[in-house]
Amino acid sequence: MALCYYKGAFLPREEVFLPVTDLSIQRGIGVFDSLRTYGKKPFASTEHLQRFIDSAEASGFRGLSSREEMDGIVREGVRRMDEDVLVRLYCTGGDVNRHGLFPEPRLFILFESIAPKLFPASCYSEGVALFSMDCPRPNPLIKSIDYMLPYVAKGGRTEYLEGLYAPGGIIGEATSSSFFIGLQGKLITAPEGEVLAGVTRKFVLELARQAGVTVEERAPRMEELEAAEEAFISSTLKEIMPVVKVDSQKVGNGRPGALTQHLRRLYLQKVEAFIRE
Amino acid sequence: MALCYYKGAFLPREEVFLPVTDLSIQRGIGVFDSLRTYGKKPFASTEHLQRFIDSAEASGFRGLSSREEMDGIVREGVRRMDEDVLVRLYCTGGDVNRHGLFPEPRLFILFESIAPKLFPASCYSEGVALFSMDCPRPNPLIKSIDYMLPYVAKGGRTEYLEGLYAPGGIIGEATSSSFFIGLQGKLITAPEGEVLAGVTRKFVLELARQAGVTVEERAPRMEELEAAEEAFISSTLKEIMPVVKVDSQKVGNGRPGALTQHLRRLYLQKVEAFIRE
Repeated sequence: MALCYYKGAFLPREEVFLPVTDLSIQRGIGVFDSLRTYGKKPFASTEHLQRFIDSAEASGFRGLSSREEMDGIVREGVRRMDEDVLVRLYCTGGDVNRHGLFPEPRLFILFESIAPKLFPASCYSEGVALFSMDCPRPNPLIKSIDYMLPYVAKGGRTEYLEGLYAPGGIIGEATSSSFFIGLQGKLITAPEGEVLAGVTRKFVLELARQAGVTVEERAPRMEELEAAEEAFISSTLKEIMPVVKVDSQKVGNGRPGALTQHLRRLYLQKVEAFIRE
Repeated sequence: MALCYYKGAFLPREEVFLPVTDLSIQRGIGVFDSLRTYGKKPFASTEHLQRFIDSAEASGFRGLSSREEMDGIVREGVRRMDEDVLVRLYCTGGDVNRHGLFPEPRLFILFESIAPKLFPASCYSEGVALFSMDCPRPNPLIKSIDYMLPYVAKGGRTEYLEGLYAPGGIIGEATSSSFFIGLQGKLITAPEGEVLAGVTRKFVLELARQAGVTVEERAPRMEELEAAEEAFISSTLKEIMPVVKVDSQKVGNGRPGALTQHLRRLYLQKVEAFIRE
């Protein structure tokens, strides 16, 4: 089941279309955000909605709904779905480009059953592989729809889950996830601003600090993967997922690491508490 | 007047829509190309159609129409328009992403009157200004719809026509144009592969070489703008357009250069010959 909120109405997703003049189609102009429900309750919706609005404003989109309005739409959409939901908010450039300002953006919000989008258990028990890309994420201050480069770079290779932006060997983030390594017991990840302000990333760092883990917010280097005990990625959909290989480089002993598994347990406990609260 | 070819039919542009599930809307996955008519005849259509097909194939799009088929559609669309036309071909990722391969891409072709899209005469008589961006074009081998970054970088600044990709001060190309400088009588422009294979760019280099101008295919550096006699950009829509300023740096004496004007005359003669042929 899938719904789409567009122009004030909730419709079956298959009935919503955008004109070919929309700048998302013609020039890739759009921002988005994803949030999910646990126990039919939107998780971290304030953070996701605020980031969505910040992305839209930083992109020169004008006249978007308020966060409160969007929060109401999200809750109503979730209410209409009969299971846990992945909510994806999109704002496109619309038809009008005023020298890089977009006065008539288009908003639509997708509500889709989350179950078919979740990853197989083996991704967590065995870990996943990433491929490196010698380029940065286009703009780490905006969660834009700019995925042409990493998607095309994947080029059909099923052995990798996604790409890892590593311009000049300096690791930023993955295609759709934040990236962390565990090195000498410390947790290392690139700082906000150099990478997208990941909502799950922020929770991971909070949980790690609360658990007494030393956190270094600096971009890891590709050559540190060899010495690293472990690595993982985080995102709304993946939560915390172990990375055991980057290109042909095995990370640690090639198995999910202890810190990764510890943080994943803490994260799932946080989710459990959220469902009960 | 504007038509759109989609799924075998020519329709008014305003009647063509894509589903919100299309990957151009959700993930910026799409390629395009633009060609124009002079005297109602498609100009350099073989080059543009071939580049469009090359872009689509390099992006993992499968099952596109042949060049001959597309050529027939372009000619039929032009025939249905009552004036000179800008033809824009688009291929989007469609709804299906198989690990970076796109087996069900969507093709649509826009036919729009070119007159409202042309630039005012002052752009040619006085020249235009560009702003520099410290980043490369995402992928110079694919004419993708990836314009989020340069459009947002423009941010409402009307004094600049467009951006100039200059990562680390090494000049590649402009947002929607190839970029050239004239320095000590030589014509200098970044080589294909480092920049998009511009169709107009290729004609400019041919005309320059035929006119006995020395051509250097290497990326100019930002600091060379100070010593340069002149600069210009080229594209299908702009043909050859003088650049007199980059950021706050005046180029040459701040007026359109002699080589620019000479090459522009040669280009317009080539077009005249094409119309008569």
